Amino acid sequence: MILYDMVQAPNPRRVRIFLAEKGIEIERVEIDIPAGQNRTPEYLAINPRGVVPTLRLDDGSIIDESIAICRYFEGLQAEPNLMGRDAREAATIEMWQRHVEFDGMFQVASIFRNTAPHFAARAHPGSAPDLPQIAALAERGRALVPRFFDMLEKQLANNAFVAGDRFTVADISALVTVDFARWVKVRVPESCVQLHRWYAAVSARPSAAA
Amino acid sequence: MILYDMVQAPNPRRVRIFLAEKGIEIERVEIDIPAGQNRTPEYLAINPRGVVPTLRLDDGSIIDESIAICRYFEGLQAEPNLMGRDAREAATIEMWQRHVEFDGMFQVASIFRNTAPHFAARAHPGSAPDLPQIAALAERGRALVPRFFDMLEKQLANNAFVAGDRFTVADISALVTVDFARWVKVRVPESCVQLHRWYAAVSARPSAAA
Repeated sequence: MILYDMVQAPNPRRVRIFLAEKGIEIERVEIDIPAGQNRTPEYLAINPRGVVPTLRLDDGSIIDESIAICRYFEGLQAEPNLMGRDAREAATIEMWQRHVEFDGMFQVASIFRNTAPHFAARAHPGSAPDLPQIAALAERGRALVPRFFDMLEKQLANNAFVAGDRFTVADISALVTVDFARWVKVRVPESCVQLHRWYAAVSARPSAAA
Repeated sequence: MILYDMVQAPNPRRVRIFLAEKGIEIERVEIDIPAGQNRTPEYLAINPRGVVPTLRLDDGSIIDESIAICRYFEGLQAEPNLMGRDAREAATIEMWQRHVEFDGMFQVASIFRNTAPHFAARAHPGSAPDLPQIAALAERGRALVPRFFDMLEKQLANNAFVAGDRFTVADISALVTVDFARWVKVRVPESCVQLHRWYAAVSARPSAAA
């Protein structure tokens, strides 16, 4: 089993934190996306979508998408549980994970992909055709991220963690998103005291360094 | 338990098809999004994000996000299984479900939300602040959808269904996406024979009428 990884990128970090929480170590191969290593014929033969992280199983088949990779390891090793123990909890964690992705992470990614100079000609990830950046889309992202922080602030006023009273995959996505937002100079406002309290707690976990 | 629904909209249809496959019937309340019923104070008190579908449980708490709602019912009633029976299968189905969402459904939604006249001032779903449409984003969607059809065509050349040899939630998302694409006059090319074969099969299931 090999994890195609990129140390700096937010999505692979989600998987690495997840694995660190589970105490699972696997072989990793670094793919340099800005240098185009995800679009070489060799890499596209492994994953035609050209994305990382990608998990390659021993029979050569792959699982990509960070959350699907997490789901695989959750199934292989149930504890510590990060995706829910019963129907209600699994659905609540998935709901929050998706809130974080769609309302937060995707918006930050939208700012980044549509402004970063080295993605000027390929504003869409992976092996998508070359597409120009859209400045208005980055602006839309900047208009939406404060709403994401506000949503988390309200949720964390009543909950220790993003999906309830314990650390889950929703916290992993949220932590990675808050750090990713710094890349585009978007920071959690000082007024979000709950969010700062939560951020300090999840950043202090050993897994955050993964 | 109440499902806040909108019969015409693609995301609620995913949940209805999922429930029909499971043979589950629940109370539904119709929310008219173009008329703004998802942004009334009454509805925002139920779900501050202002989206449908939203499942309201008997204790008043909610689960939104189509796939999280599906996960809830999968946990309540395991058969027929639509989200995977073991780690490998659950991860593979989730991977394909996400491929369909991100590479297909989101691109079609992007075309729709950035061109539909009644969303001219609110190009982002739910209770997001009013945001203008971005014509270039609709164009980007149009550039990406053919790649989605091509991805499915290749997968369906070797598999009866999107995530393998049986019908799963990934087929539900894909069916809804192909039908949603018609709204913006994007159709599966005649050359995609596997995709047409699959579409005829999944559309003929009684659940497709849900």
